[in-house]
Amino acid sequence: MAAWARAVRGLLLDVSGVLYDSGGDGGGVPIAGSAEAVRRIKTSGLKLRFCTNETQTTREKFVKKLRGMGFDISVSEVTAPAPAACRMLKERSLRPHLLVHNDLVPEFAEVDKANPNCVVIGDAAENFTYANLNEAFRVLIGMEKPVLISLGKGRYYKETDGLKLDVGAYMKALEYACDVQAEVVGKPAKTFFESALAEMGVPAQEAIMIGDDIVNDVGGAQRCGMRALQVRTGKYRPCDENHPQVKPDAYVNNLAEAVDVILQQL
Amino acid sequence: MAAWARAVRGLLLDVSGVLYDSGGDGGGVPIAGSAEAVRRIKTSGLKLRFCTNETQTTREKFVKKLRGMGFDISVSEVTAPAPAACRMLKERSLRPHLLVHNDLVPEFAEVDKANPNCVVIGDAAENFTYANLNEAFRVLIGMEKPVLISLGKGRYYKETDGLKLDVGAYMKALEYACDVQAEVVGKPAKTFFESALAEMGVPAQEAIMIGDDIVNDVGGAQRCGMRALQVRTGKYRPCDENHPQVKPDAYVNNLAEAVDVILQQL
Repeated sequence: MAAWARAVRGLLLDVSGVLYDSGGDGGGVPIAGSAEAVRRIKTSGLKLRFCTNETQTTREKFVKKLRGMGFDISVSEVTAPAPAACRMLKERSLRPHLLVHNDLVPEFAEVDKANPNCVVIGDAAENFTYANLNEAFRVLIGMEKPVLISLGKGRYYKETDGLKLDVGAYMKALEYACDVQAEVVGKPAKTFFESALAEMGVPAQEAIMIGDDIVNDVGGAQRCGMRALQVRTGKYRPCDENHPQVKPDAYVNNLAEAVDVILQQL
Repeated sequence: MAAWARAVRGLLLDVSGVLYDSGGDGGGVPIAGSAEAVRRIKTSGLKLRFCTNETQTTREKFVKKLRGMGFDISVSEVTAPAPAACRMLKERSLRPHLLVHNDLVPEFAEVDKANPNCVVIGDAAENFTYANLNEAFRVLIGMEKPVLISLGKGRYYKETDGLKLDVGAYMKALEYACDVQAEVVGKPAKTFFESALAEMGVPAQEAIMIGDDIVNDVGGAQRCGMRALQVRTGKYRPCDENHPQVKPDAYVNNLAEAVDVILQQL
């Protein structure tokens, strides 16, 4: 019946807006049926990878929070932007000025940050102050060829107390001020999805991405040759269904419904 | 000798970076020779208009500060974005949510701000907090067709304690987050320069704009048919002289030098 659900060996799940709705206080509320859906995926024999642009905390704390909400998840199952950025910084001998959330800083513990020659921007939330933006701007504008690395390019996300601007908006501010194009680590970067697929050992054609972000989850995964579903939870808005560029392989009301359909086809 | 200086009847002067360098505390330091240059223009018989994108204060306070630094300037000689925005808001029955500097708010005293149906963004400086950006974003994203009005689109400006992000950077953040294009009031908008010319009663071909911003002063004025000079003061940077799109009619070291040359041709 559902052609999009056939011949699947692995699932990539976005986390915020799919498993849970995050709260402004760092907490959050699980989305009904999602914890059970994760358990059903794991017992089904499907490969599973959590593919998140979360940059407000270390993977360790993030996983701990999710386990506290009842999710069966471990650090080794999570693909996140900060470790990908650390690999890139080391490969290119870059020393970052960090404009990130305080709780993300430990992910960069091993990275040389003296005398910075690039800026790394994440979802810094309350750290997006006027003073901090100006400081990052001055580091960039002082370089002959500014290097800006962004941990994602999301426009906004939903917390329990409302929509919030995501890192992409602040990335655009710095791009414009410095006349530079950011290098995006995290979704929708192709290399990021490809890492997640490699970590699962599943080719793109046999994987489905499930997310609430029409551009960064759905569009990004489809450009890598995956199928992709948009859930009608999290930051989903009805007008997403008229998006001029991106059309998901299917819409589902939530993760539980997606898993129902996929498991029926196994 | 200087062909660009011939047949001039009026001058438009940018203020910050041409007359003075502004300070983070709302004060500033006059640029050497500029106060004397303004006096010489006024006694020469040339028409004069101050054409500023200043949105951190009312015109009254702005003029008072400049007079305190020794400049011969009055409110009626200043073309600024906030009054232009107020005219636009009234014409279109728009009720703004304001994301502006506290000191600019009195310029909008006569405007109905209840139940907002647009956002007006100015150079809010310390008011560009994470919370205030999110609030403006939510007003916009909640509209069927978001209306964002920006009092300028400058990338950055120079204060005595360093470069600061200008309104344009924050405008870009909201544009990206809401997938909307801002309507710019102030330089480099054509209507803004045209108002200043009309207020002087001088046609574009007989006017010269003098500014430190290669795009918003020089490029904007040239698109209106004016000649335009870039001063090597304020936010001027040597790399401006290799700008891919904009080429001033001449460079001058400062306002005093420009006035020297222009007055020699009268």
